[in-house]
Amino acid sequence: MGHREDKELIEPWRITNGSKFRLDDYDPDSTGSLRAKDEKDADELLSEGIERIAELQERLYAQNCHSLLLVFQAMDAAGKDSTIKHVLSGVNPHGCQVTSFKAPSSEELDHDFLWRSTKALPGRGMIGIFNRSYYEEVLVVRVHPELLEHQQLPKGSVGKNIWKHRYEDIVAYERHLARNGTTILKFFLNVSKKEQKRRFLERLDEPDKLWKFAPGDLKERERWKEYMQAYESMVRATAKPFAPWFVVPADNKWYTRLVVCAAINSALGGLELDLPQVGKEQRGEIESFRKQLEKD
Amino acid sequence: MGHREDKELIEPWRITNGSKFRLDDYDPDSTGSLRAKDEKDADELLSEGIERIAELQERLYAQNCHSLLLVFQAMDAAGKDSTIKHVLSGVNPHGCQVTSFKAPSSEELDHDFLWRSTKALPGRGMIGIFNRSYYEEVLVVRVHPELLEHQQLPKGSVGKNIWKHRYEDIVAYERHLARNGTTILKFFLNVSKKEQKRRFLERLDEPDKLWKFAPGDLKERERWKEYMQAYESMVRATAKPFAPWFVVPADNKWYTRLVVCAAINSALGGLELDLPQVGKEQRGEIESFRKQLEKD
Repeated sequence: MGHREDKELIEPWRITNGSKFRLDDYDPDSTGSLRAKDEKDADELLSEGIERIAELQERLYAQNCHSLLLVFQAMDAAGKDSTIKHVLSGVNPHGCQVTSFKAPSSEELDHDFLWRSTKALPGRGMIGIFNRSYYEEVLVVRVHPELLEHQQLPKGSVGKNIWKHRYEDIVAYERHLARNGTTILKFFLNVSKKEQKRRFLERLDEPDKLWKFAPGDLKERERWKEYMQAYESMVRATAKPFAPWFVVPADNKWYTRLVVCAAINSALGGLELDLPQVGKEQRGEIESFRKQLEKD
Repeated sequence: MGHREDKELIEPWRITNGSKFRLDDYDPDSTGSLRAKDEKDADELLSEGIERIAELQERLYAQNCHSLLLVFQAMDAAGKDSTIKHVLSGVNPHGCQVTSFKAPSSEELDHDFLWRSTKALPGRGMIGIFNRSYYEEVLVVRVHPELLEHQQLPKGSVGKNIWKHRYEDIVAYERHLARNGTTILKFFLNVSKKEQKRRFLERLDEPDKLWKFAPGDLKERERWKEYMQAYESMVRATAKPFAPWFVVPADNKWYTRLVVCAAINSALGGLELDLPQVGKEQRGEIESFRKQLEKD
C-alpha cells in the first residue's frame, strides 16, 4: 500500500468541508474501487500499511513536535474496538495511548464538556486514540436531551442554540489544537442497520462474543434514525480542513481497516517527520563521549 | 459596601469591548471617585465586601452549577499576591483554589498552551484563582519571542499571525467556558513604572520583603514599554462581555483591593445563587430521618 493507494482509499470518504454533506450519499456497504474478491489481498495490504505506521510513529516520537489525535465514533457493533486493535497494534505502546470515554464521572460533569478530553490529549510525539469522544456530547446527548439535566448547566445555557454552540466550541477547540501541533483525524464508522442486526445476532450466538452484548444496545438501535440525523448534522458542522471527518463504510471490516490505515499513513506521511539533526557541537560531544567510554 | 458602591468602583475600569481600548487613558494612580482621605474607611469597606464574598461563595458551592475563574496578570510588584491574599482570605478554602503558573514544565510544553490551565480550571461550585495564566503566552512570550523556540511548535504555526491566532483561540476558549457555567473575571493590576521602582527599593530595604526580590525582575523592567504594548494589545483583543478585563489602578493598594473585591461581589451577586430546593419527597425523607434518630 503506497501513497497512490492511500489516496485512492481515502478520497471518497474524506470530508473537509461539511456544508454539503448528506449521509444518504454514503453507502455503508461500499468497498470503493476494491471488489469483494480483493478481500484476500487486503490482509497483506493492511500488514504493509501497519508497518509504515509503526515506522512513521518512531519518527513522530523522535521529533517530538507534532501529535496525532484519532477520534472514533460509531453506532454499536460498527467495529471501533476491532479497527483500533487491528490497525494500531503494530505501534510501540510507548508512543500511543487509547482513551475510552464512558458515561462522565461526577468530577467530569463538574467541568465543561471538553475538560476530560483535554486531560487525555496526546503530547508531542504521541498518537492519542479516542474510543468515543467529546462528540458524544452532540450525539447521545442530542438523541437523549434529558442527559443535559445531569450536566448542572446554568439555566441560560440550555436554549435552542445549544447544539450550534457546542459545534462552534468544538470547531474552535480543534482549530486551536491543530495550530499548536496536533493533527486530528475523525472516523465515523458508518455501519448499516442491517449489518448491525447481523453482528448483534452473531454476538448472541458466539460464546466468546457474548460479553460484548449489552441489553441497552437494543434501545439505542430503536433510535437509529435520530442517531443518523445527529451524525449528519455533526459532520456538516465540524468537518474542516484542519480536522476532517472520514465517513468510513463499515459493513465490510477488511475495507474499514484499510481506509483507516491509509488515512493515518497519509496524515503522518504529510508531516515532514525529519529526525532531529545532530549539529556540529553535538558531534563534538558525541566524539568526546566515545573517547571517554573507550578509556573507561 | 453595597451594590451601588460596587458599581461605582468597577465601572470605570471594566472593559467588555476592547476594540477602542488605549492603556494611556488609564491612570495607575487613580482612586476613582474616592480620595486619599478615604483610605482610612477603605479597610472597613473591604471587610464588609469580603464577608459578602464569603456568603455568596457558600451559595455557589451549595448550588454546584456555576464556577468563578479569577485571572490575575500584572508586572512585578503590582500586588497580585497581596491582592489575592487580602481579598480572598475570608473564603472557605474548601471552595477556592489558587494556581500559580510559573515557567512551563516539559510535560506542559508537550501540549498546547491552554492545556495546563484547563487541568486547573475550577469545577462547578468553586472559585479558581489563576496567579498569572495562559495570558503569559501573549505577554512574556510576545516580549521574548525566543521563548517560542522551546515550545516545539510545527514550523508552519509560528508565522506573523501567531498572536492573532492566540487571541482568537483564547477568546473561543473563554466563550466555551462561559457557555458551560464559568464566570470569568480578568484583572490587570495596572501599576506605574515609578511605583514599581518604589516597591522594588522597599523590598531591598526591608529584610522580610527581601525574599521577593529576584534579579531577573530588573531585566523585565527594562522592557517596560514593550510589556505595556503587549498588555494593551491583549486587552483590545480579548475583552469581551463574557470575559471582561478590569484594568485596575494599582499604585494605591487599598484602592486596588476595593475594586477587585467589588468586581467579585458584583459577578457573584448576578448569578442568582438560589440554594437547592428541598422538595416534598425530600421533606418526607427528612422527617422519617428525624424520627429514626429520635428513636436511636
